[in-house]
Amino acid sequence: MKRTSAEEHVNRIEALRKEMITAGTDYYYVPGGDFHMSEYVCDHFKCREFLSGFDGSNGEMIVSSEGAYLWTDGRYFIQAAEQLEGTGIELMKMGEPGVPKISDFLKTHMENGQTLGFDGRCVSGGAFDRLKEALEGKAIVYKTEDDLVGNIWNDRPELPDGKAWILENRYTNLTRAEKLSLVRTEMDKAGCDVLVVASLDDIAWLYGFRGSDIEYNPVTLSYTVVTRKEAVLYMEPSKAEDIRTALERDGVVIKRYEDIFDDLKAMDAGHRVWTDKERINVKVLDSIPSDAKRILRWSPTFTLKGVKTETEVEHERSAHITDGAALTKIICYLKSLHETDELNEGKVTELDIASKLLGYRQEAEDFIEESFAPIIAAGPHGAIIHYEPDESTNAALRDNDLVLMDTGGQYLRGTTDVTRTVVIGEPTEKMKRLYTAVLKGNIALSSAVFRKGTSGRRLDILARKPLWELGLDYNHGTGHGVGFLLNVHEGPQNISSGPSGMGDTPFVPGMITSDEPGVYLEGEFGIRTENMIVCIPKESTDFGDFYGFEVLTLVPFDRDLIDTEMLTEEEIGIIDDYHRCVYEELCIFMDEKERKWLAETTRPLIDF
Amino acid sequence: MKRTSAEEHVNRIEALRKEMITAGTDYYYVPGGDFHMSEYVCDHFKCREFLSGFDGSNGEMIVSSEGAYLWTDGRYFIQAAEQLEGTGIELMKMGEPGVPKISDFLKTHMENGQTLGFDGRCVSGGAFDRLKEALEGKAIVYKTEDDLVGNIWNDRPELPDGKAWILENRYTNLTRAEKLSLVRTEMDKAGCDVLVVASLDDIAWLYGFRGSDIEYNPVTLSYTVVTRKEAVLYMEPSKAEDIRTALERDGVVIKRYEDIFDDLKAMDAGHRVWTDKERINVKVLDSIPSDAKRILRWSPTFTLKGVKTETEVEHERSAHITDGAALTKIICYLKSLHETDELNEGKVTELDIASKLLGYRQEAEDFIEESFAPIIAAGPHGAIIHYEPDESTNAALRDNDLVLMDTGGQYLRGTTDVTRTVVIGEPTEKMKRLYTAVLKGNIALSSAVFRKGTSGRRLDILARKPLWELGLDYNHGTGHGVGFLLNVHEGPQNISSGPSGMGDTPFVPGMITSDEPGVYLEGEFGIRTENMIVCIPKESTDFGDFYGFEVLTLVPFDRDLIDTEMLTEEEIGIIDDYHRCVYEELCIFMDEKERKWLAETTRPLIDF
Repeated sequence: MKRTSAEEHVNRIEALRKEMITAGTDYYYVPGGDFHMSEYVCDHFKCREFLSGFDGSNGEMIVSSEGAYLWTDGRYFIQAAEQLEGTGIELMKMGEPGVPKISDFLKTHMENGQTLGFDGRCVSGGAFDRLKEALEGKAIVYKTEDDLVGNIWNDRPELPDGKAWILENRYTNLTRAEKLSLVRTEMDKAGCDVLVVASLDDIAWLYGFRGSDIEYNPVTLSYTVVTRKEAVLYMEPSKAEDIRTALERDGVVIKRYEDIFDDLKAMDAGHRVWTDKERINVKVLDSIPSDAKRILRWSPTFTLKGVKTETEVEHERSAHITDGAALTKIICYLKSLHETDELNEGKVTELDIASKLLGYRQEAEDFIEESFAPIIAAGPHGAIIHYEPDESTNAALRDNDLVLMDTGGQYLRGTTDVTRTVVIGEPTEKMKRLYTAVLKGNIALSSAVFRKGTSGRRLDILARKPLWELGLDYNHGTGHGVGFLLNVHEGPQNISSGPSGMGDTPFVPGMITSDEPGVYLEGEFGIRTENMIVCIPKESTDFGDFYGFEVLTLVPFDRDLIDTEMLTEEEIGIIDDYHRCVYEELCIFMDEKERKWLAETTRPLIDF
Repeated sequence: MKRTSAEEHVNRIEALRKEMITAGTDYYYVPGGDFHMSEYVCDHFKCREFLSGFDGSNGEMIVSSEGAYLWTDGRYFIQAAEQLEGTGIELMKMGEPGVPKISDFLKTHMENGQTLGFDGRCVSGGAFDRLKEALEGKAIVYKTEDDLVGNIWNDRPELPDGKAWILENRYTNLTRAEKLSLVRTEMDKAGCDVLVVASLDDIAWLYGFRGSDIEYNPVTLSYTVVTRKEAVLYMEPSKAEDIRTALERDGVVIKRYEDIFDDLKAMDAGHRVWTDKERINVKVLDSIPSDAKRILRWSPTFTLKGVKTETEVEHERSAHITDGAALTKIICYLKSLHETDELNEGKVTELDIASKLLGYRQEAEDFIEESFAPIIAAGPHGAIIHYEPDESTNAALRDNDLVLMDTGGQYLRGTTDVTRTVVIGEPTEKMKRLYTAVLKGNIALSSAVFRKGTSGRRLDILARKPLWELGLDYNHGTGHGVGFLLNVHEGPQNISSGPSGMGDTPFVPGMITSDEPGVYLEGEFGIRTENMIVCIPKESTDFGDFYGFEVLTLVPFDRDLIDTEMLTEEEIGIIDDYHRCVYEELCIFMDEKERKWLAETTRPLIDF
């Protein structure tokens, strides 16, 4: 989207207010999501950005006759302040003292009997419930069918029209029919006969297709309803052209995207309907007849999808070799920049590295796209956890500085997500101490053995412990689930102590997550070391079944940043074994110079 | 209680059935607790034991016209089977496949409109809610006021009449008035104006008294109701004689134990009443007028009590020196038994050791009683987690075998709880491997540094990790809160992954818990190493406040059982530091022979 003037945003807010008067709406809520509660959304859904000019990944607005307010989190305070300047929109800094949450703000400001409007397709049932709960006793009128920003957005981007395509079964070895059968078994167990799903990655998983509606996420805008006998996929026919035959062969009926609302409304009485209210929009939820019994919890597609098949894991291993080679080449290149004129003259930028890395990734035949916007963060940029370089921030790399690279790719063989932090030239002792502490946390988690039933919430401390011992920490989770050629963030498991509930999911073999402790010193540098790991069985004894992890990622750690004095013998052994494996798998992808460097950098940490 | 014949128990069940007919009760529920949901109960409350003859610490019964059933857990399957023989009572093995929970049993067996009776004073509000929920839709009639076992129990022990006594403020440095003020502040925050508490240790804590109604737990049967202006202690006047003056001086009103029911019923309309439904009996709960708003969660007395004052911690340190000396003397004695005739002839038994240890503890002037029934478990007995030797099980110690000792004392200076496992003579390699793994877990937890906000649920894994790596585990929590001259088990914090919710309580400085990993090999031996630890502040950095633990317990680990090959340098340093401290604090309590041995056993693990 082009940058627009502050004045234009003032005009847009005014235009919205006129729409609000016409609609009889006192407060209008502009959430950040799409119809599917997706983490990434396509341009059509960027109403908040259209209205405010603020283009961070997290932001929601409230507009009333008197004011316009935008909530975003700490990552974006500076950027939002800049982008909102002159628009009259007040920045609400989430989490800061005295700054109310949206629901509390509305509770304070709205008067009895006033009307709150929003586009119910962009708000989850769970979020709406929490809003209503906060405003309980205020007799608020809710208008959930008004897309007022849509009314004033003349050149609004259309919904995307990417074609869905079949992911061959050889990549997963779990057929559409088998997956439907697994889902129906879960439905039987839960005593429900209708399942409604809006999560795009769940739907792509279930029916074995992929799409291209959303950047980085190979999914297609769609809903599905599964009953004991039927499976209906709601997707625009033009987009479903290439998957129709295969799906129909398995008895899946394809209907128009918008048909779900009328179909749900026409449901017979007495059904027991399973849906996840955090992952379904209000309009879908309201279309389910009120006499239906609702079973509101994680969809079986959500939980089943999280456990990869052996074939998927095998392909992930292969994808990580290709992907690891690309990043390893970049690291070799970065190392070679030390004391060069090119570097000293500021001619190598973050975006250069991103572009070069993408080029290496694209050499793989089955590479599709990046799995998220690449984070190449030089020096102090590394301390900004979600920093993404763009033309306005793009910094030149400097000698004797750290570069944090968090990137990933989508391959037919799976999704990758890897972070390495490297030093160009000579690190300081402080850099080494912190890097080594982060690395200790990373390998403590990946080498853990744990009893069946253990959740990520319990494992999280293993990655933090070496940092806590130095009075350090990181304000993000330790690990998130990763899809198979799907979203780079998925559930149902994660490794964190956060409130989402996903941290309570016990690990089972086949679950893939990231392992990414870090430490961030504002204004100085950031360090993060991220591998993808897959849960595997370890041993069964009289005391139970024990699981562990296998590291999928294959990229060397930066030995220049490792302080071996801080490592135990066991830790040194783990790193040496890993490096041996990295060399063996990647050496054939390296040219002569790269191979020489790789051999050198992956040799045992302590020379005898 | 004397052992009675099976026939007598048949008669008692029959007598109960006659009472049930008179009362119009189809099913009668005999829970295991007292009026205060205490973990330990006095003889007056042992209805289940009176009825069945089974005297394990956990057991509940259901009696109907057709059958009588007793539920207990795995610790007691063998004992219960023996004690129930010939009584016609069916043993329900909790947790075994196909064995229903009491609520599910009632759901299956009870018919619409039937009556379930029990003594509502012995069932918590929470337990009753769960029962009603399970039986929902069955139109069951509940009779909660019938103590039918009481009707047939002729020589029932009276309620105890131990006198309460004042614990001088110098032991706690937090006065009654200060505690009442803290409680009222929490009440204000919660927006409630009446607090009802039945937990005996909470009440003793709040009013700064101790009692002697229950063995091992220095508490007195009582309830309390606190309002913004008033504080009423419900306790029999004869028991309150020695505390009346002090309490009245602080405005506390003392009324008869039974008066609480009428007082609550007479409450004005519109109060907001705070009580913890898991820790209050049904009769008290039902006495609160139905128009009162109920706030059902942990009482502020429960949470405040869990954080010890600096003075209490200082006294605990002192108590642990005295207590540690007693146990250390016993260990020295056990070590001296190797290859003696006394040992070889089977002349030293578990009960001998318990008695000798009690003797040493009694040498302390302020020793009051043991804090729980001592566990002295030789050889295979060590694998029975809650083994307590009695005349029927008492085993002789054997050479080259392990002895597990889990004991504790009540002192004016606080409560202790310590476990040491020692070998008499030569251990096997297996014993050493397992002992060292348990020890690694113990010190990993006690030496942990963690960020403010960290709960025991997250810390638990630190103690298990070294065991999990060997395919071992223990089926109990890692740590429980410990009272200050109160119950050896208390909340609100603990270190476990269990469902109680206490594991989610963040640690704050002043919280005391145990640290007790173990491993149990049925038929062979058991190992447990338990220290008491207190949470202390460590450092504050830009990344937050960090806490850790100080070890209170001072008793040497058994160096004969430590395999130094399995330890890191850091672990060896921790053990050596601890042993140095043990020697310094305890040597003055040792006689010459003991001192020589203590110096030897606490010297650095690796000789140079």
